Amino acid sequence: MADLEIRPATAEDVPAIVAMLADDPLGAQRESPEDLTPYLTALERLAADPNQHVMVAVREGRVIGTLQLTVNPGLSHKGAARAIIEGVRIHTDERGSGLGTQLIEWAVDESRRQNCRMVQLTSDNSRTDAHRFYERLGFTASHVGFKLQL
Amino acid sequence: MADLEIRPATAEDVPAIVAMLADDPLGAQRESPEDLTPYLTALERLAADPNQHVMVAVREGRVIGTLQLTVNPGLSHKGAARAIIEGVRIHTDERGSGLGTQLIEWAVDESRRQNCRMVQLTSDNSRTDAHRFYERLGFTASHVGFKLQL
Repeated sequence: MADLEIRPATAEDVPAIVAMLADDPLGAQRESPEDLTPYLTALERLAADPNQHVMVAVREGRVIGTLQLTVNPGLSHKGAARAIIEGVRIHTDERGSGLGTQLIEWAVDESRRQNCRMVQLTSDNSRTDAHRFYERLGFTASHVGFKLQL
Repeated sequence: MADLEIRPATAEDVPAIVAMLADDPLGAQRESPEDLTPYLTALERLAADPNQHVMVAVREGRVIGTLQLTVNPGLSHKGAARAIIEGVRIHTDERGSGLGTQLIEWAVDESRRQNCRMVQLTSDNSRTDAHRFYERLGFTASHVGFKLQL
């Protein structure tokens, strides 16, 4: 199998990223692949922030996975930074290929390089396959994730 | 009761903030009130970042509450920013006074002002009183919060 590259996302990757965000039982209801403008604006803001890492996984020139890693400094835990993972998506054709594991392992390694003392993420209660996946990678389901839509 | 002020934390507030972080069944094991250096370093980094808001609640010159609000831009949800709340602490003497509600309501209002489409936080599975508190404030326990210590 050809080599996998994990690199920062650029504007050219946005159509492929948004297609993956929308190709999902939850994402289908809340994304707008027909209008990329808000995504391009958001990526500009993210690219300008050294604590933000929107990444794509690319094989043979094709974007097949994405995630966002945020380094979030804080006061608790003796002033520790935490890493937050959001927006993990794997192209339908690539599910079960181990790509999700490679992406999360990249994020964990990068979090260590940035001196984070913890990596955290939340996963919708309905995504039970994802929960088993994160537990296999060593994550602990120790918290309840609360959301308030504005 | 004297007026409550909610304002950004300064270096002078750090001893009171760390005392609150440590005065907690979980925090007691992981904070170092005897050495404030790492907290002061972290606060400098946080104060330089326009997406970070470490706040204190002050009454009659006394720091009685704190939280950290982070504005986290992202691609999903049509390029929406999310607000993340971390490190919510209320001084022991002030619990049950409604101060927690005032702090979270401040954070929700500020998140709206910053065009966030969601406010999110995680709470340790053991903090069942906190879970009821967030549900009363309109949050939904829709997610599982995963953590990996590094």
